[in-house]
Amino acid sequence: MSTAKFDTIGQYLLKRLYEAGVKHIFGVPGDYVLGFYDLMVKSPVRHIGTTREDSAAFAADGYARCLGMGALAVTYGVGALNTVNAVAGAYAESSPVVVISGGPGVREQRDDPLIHHRFGPFTFQREIFERITCVSVVLNDPVIAFRQIDHAIASARRCCKPVYIEIPRDMVMVEGYPMPEVATEWFASDQGALSEAIAETVELMAKSVSPMVIAGIELHRHKLQETLVKFVERTKLPVVATLSGKSVIAERHPAYFGIYQGAMSSENARYTVEQSDLLLMLGVTLTDIDTGIYTAKLDPHSMIRASMDEVVISAHRYPRVSLADFLAKLTDSVKTCNEAYAVKPAPLASGAFPETGRAITIVRLIERINRALSDEMIVVCDVGDCLFAAIDLQVHEQSEFLASGFYATMGFAVPAALGAQIARPDHRTLVLVGDGAFQMTGTELSTHAHFGLNPIVVVFNNQGYSTERGILEGPFNDISSWRFDKLGEVFGPLAGYDVTTEEAFETALISALNNQTMPSIINVHLSADDSSSAMKRLAEHLKSRVKG
Amino acid sequence: MSTAKFDTIGQYLLKRLYEAGVKHIFGVPGDYVLGFYDLMVKSPVRHIGTTREDSAAFAADGYARCLGMGALAVTYGVGALNTVNAVAGAYAESSPVVVISGGPGVREQRDDPLIHHRFGPFTFQREIFERITCVSVVLNDPVIAFRQIDHAIASARRCCKPVYIEIPRDMVMVEGYPMPEVATEWFASDQGALSEAIAETVELMAKSVSPMVIAGIELHRHKLQETLVKFVERTKLPVVATLSGKSVIAERHPAYFGIYQGAMSSENARYTVEQSDLLLMLGVTLTDIDTGIYTAKLDPHSMIRASMDEVVISAHRYPRVSLADFLAKLTDSVKTCNEAYAVKPAPLASGAFPETGRAITIVRLIERINRALSDEMIVVCDVGDCLFAAIDLQVHEQSEFLASGFYATMGFAVPAALGAQIARPDHRTLVLVGDGAFQMTGTELSTHAHFGLNPIVVVFNNQGYSTERGILEGPFNDISSWRFDKLGEVFGPLAGYDVTTEEAFETALISALNNQTMPSIINVHLSADDSSSAMKRLAEHLKSRVKG
Repeated sequence: MSTAKFDTIGQYLLKRLYEAGVKHIFGVPGDYVLGFYDLMVKSPVRHIGTTREDSAAFAADGYARCLGMGALAVTYGVGALNTVNAVAGAYAESSPVVVISGGPGVREQRDDPLIHHRFGPFTFQREIFERITCVSVVLNDPVIAFRQIDHAIASARRCCKPVYIEIPRDMVMVEGYPMPEVATEWFASDQGALSEAIAETVELMAKSVSPMVIAGIELHRHKLQETLVKFVERTKLPVVATLSGKSVIAERHPAYFGIYQGAMSSENARYTVEQSDLLLMLGVTLTDIDTGIYTAKLDPHSMIRASMDEVVISAHRYPRVSLADFLAKLTDSVKTCNEAYAVKPAPLASGAFPETGRAITIVRLIERINRALSDEMIVVCDVGDCLFAAIDLQVHEQSEFLASGFYATMGFAVPAALGAQIARPDHRTLVLVGDGAFQMTGTELSTHAHFGLNPIVVVFNNQGYSTERGILEGPFNDISSWRFDKLGEVFGPLAGYDVTTEEAFETALISALNNQTMPSIINVHLSADDSSSAMKRLAEHLKSRVKG
Repeated sequence: MSTAKFDTIGQYLLKRLYEAGVKHIFGVPGDYVLGFYDLMVKSPVRHIGTTREDSAAFAADGYARCLGMGALAVTYGVGALNTVNAVAGAYAESSPVVVISGGPGVREQRDDPLIHHRFGPFTFQREIFERITCVSVVLNDPVIAFRQIDHAIASARRCCKPVYIEIPRDMVMVEGYPMPEVATEWFASDQGALSEAIAETVELMAKSVSPMVIAGIELHRHKLQETLVKFVERTKLPVVATLSGKSVIAERHPAYFGIYQGAMSSENARYTVEQSDLLLMLGVTLTDIDTGIYTAKLDPHSMIRASMDEVVISAHRYPRVSLADFLAKLTDSVKTCNEAYAVKPAPLASGAFPETGRAITIVRLIERINRALSDEMIVVCDVGDCLFAAIDLQVHEQSEFLASGFYATMGFAVPAALGAQIARPDHRTLVLVGDGAFQMTGTELSTHAHFGLNPIVVVFNNQGYSTERGILEGPFNDISSWRFDKLGEVFGPLAGYDVTTEEAFETALISALNNQTMPSIINVHLSADDSSSAMKRLAEHLKSRVKG
């Protein structure tokens, strides 16, 4: 009866995403999603084109880790199915990525035609994404479409997981039906359980001789970094992070003792954790990588584990207590400690860099990069050697270290860095990536160049899949050799450097730091048998498992 | 009780694949599949490493189209999920690709641990692949593993579809249990239905004034090319092919009248089809692309449609009649025709090539490539402009044209050409690919170079997604500009050419044809508004559908 014109479904989706902080949508166009693209370029949301759809998903993941939500828009079939690995990674790593897939029109689907990009029943694509997202919807009914959109976006935020929204192409311009705002079922802590858990924790902390904090990935994802700092500054407790929680607290913070990862840990972190009689584990997931492939020595009876929706103390559970509520209330409940932070041994003097004529090694490379880190840098790290080596990097700010630390998908770093730098234009990304991983998605660097971004990409070039060489050597670990530094010949602008010695790296790094106008890539030749000590220990451990 | 040593599950899988014609397995190693890789390199099966897993799947698809079966082996999660699009493409295009994924060990899975590459319940990966394969199995029981392997491989061959085999890493070296060979349920035609269908067909052919054959993709997939030639040479009927059936008969065969694709057809093909009073449609699938987006004028009452497992004449069906049996028996049942083949109008004289100073256009480019085709060339074509332009190419041999003509996934051609040339080392591939598609997977060319292959890659560089420009123009159709010809600076050996004129193309093509020792890439700059006339008609038609 009303003559008011409502939003179309496509408009509403864009509007709600924008309100949720999504100012950019990554993706590759295709005819099933072109109508939505047309709306997008007419909206305040900016489109960032990538060379491939999986890159768009990695970029949206990087963007989401920086700003709390990211999105991509792709075509049906060939587009969406190309993102399955990257979206599964966002799911495993708890990153709220909104996957928008165009779809064949509702009317088109009626006669079950053999249309291009089709691979089976039209429902199959949603069924695939159902397994790698927390909510998956098809907007084929204008009466409920707005509600579905609200639900999907709210769920992505609440669960910190990807969601899937399929929009049949003939629904983009159909008006939707406004529905009342229903309070979304935000998780509310059980106040009784919360109070009891806090009381028990305070008492255990008072009795404990050497309490400490292990900070995990969920603090990142639920944006509790500031709360953590407040807690730590009040209690003066030492803090270590898991690898997936790396940089949840600024790594130059006086309370910070490094990454704990079982046998792979730095000595400081390992000593601090393993001598402690009370481990406050905040948002920690005990994955194989975070536990140094189960080499972590953690006594469940000395643990208080607060995770997304429950607190576990020793062997008993307090269900329905959120991490956010627990940490905030605990901070208010503990006494302020006026003592100084525990003293860390001074880092070993590493000697001057560069040494004339000295071939570069991973340990010295990381030491040098460490000194180059600044407040406005975001470190984005790929899988393999460079990830384990990066344990020793000291990231300045909170949440400025992005990696696929649990799902461990190669090819994450270069496109994720695109998302991070688009999200935070005042920052600069430093990308650490192996030669194998770079061959997977590294040419996405042409998109950085296209948008005038200036990442510094350091390729740890050790001639193959080195993590695997440590487990089982074979010809399959060899890859073809690329002159990564020459990519500027193919696309640009791009500054490239090929280095084998410390001096050459020093020159390249200074030049890259000074070059603010384009991407830089430094192809660092490393010995195939060089590796971080953490990786050596990991590989040794994995070796025994390959053959069962 | 027996002391005989049986094969292990990994050994048996390799043995059966080898017996099925799979002499090469494509893939990227990873720790969940390393044990299988170790067995592979000790077996007669050769491993072909690619830079990415999706490339391995495209390569296996190209290999399967040439030899009847292809395979890839990848790690769990990050590896397998990276192939979903390419495997869905093989499913849509009926290509028998065996996907082998490593998996966490059976014993490892028991405690439901958070191990790297995990993204959900351990069953989810199989459930995803269940939707894009005809059989999906997990080899977690040594008693039935051999039977599962036999069933999967037989099904891939019978259905011409991909299959999924997951092998938990602790099962690779476990001995399997030999089972009796059970006759696989090969489809047997209903002899009564077959005879009746043949009798009716023979009668209709005798009455018909202008019968003709439309040859489709299923003749390719079920290896019925020779049978088709025999039928055609006996009946002297004119033949057209669908785009997905292209090259099912040698395109220089006197009976061949070109590609029929509705409004997109060549004039010869369209006239031949649309004036016919009896269409013998052999293995034709009526997809949107094959029907020129439903612009085909085909009267169901003048049709005999023989497909994989049934024959339909006018409005009645003969179920359980196989295409192979129908075509073979029909060939035996028809009278030999001693007349000459119908005469085709001579192709228009296209004028001398190159013309001095003339900018190159798609039409002239295809004309020149046409003259360069030889018997030992396999044309592999990506999606877009180049696919529609290739309608006018005359491929010499049967089945020497590979494309993703229905699923239409960009990025198919370069990796599929790798598979084709590994399968047929005596052949040379000619790859036609757009600039957008090349940016997706084109760097896989480094693998061609690594293995000493010599494809000739022609990049149709029209500065963006031109097929989409024809549907809806927008800034999202622009892509960054690459000097494809300079890729040799990054990896090699690789000969590169950058051309804008006919003369430059001529020089580059001759040089590439003479250079047998390495890949060649010719970056052909085309005007952004140049296109094949088929594509113009298609885009015009699609335009009306984008917004529903």
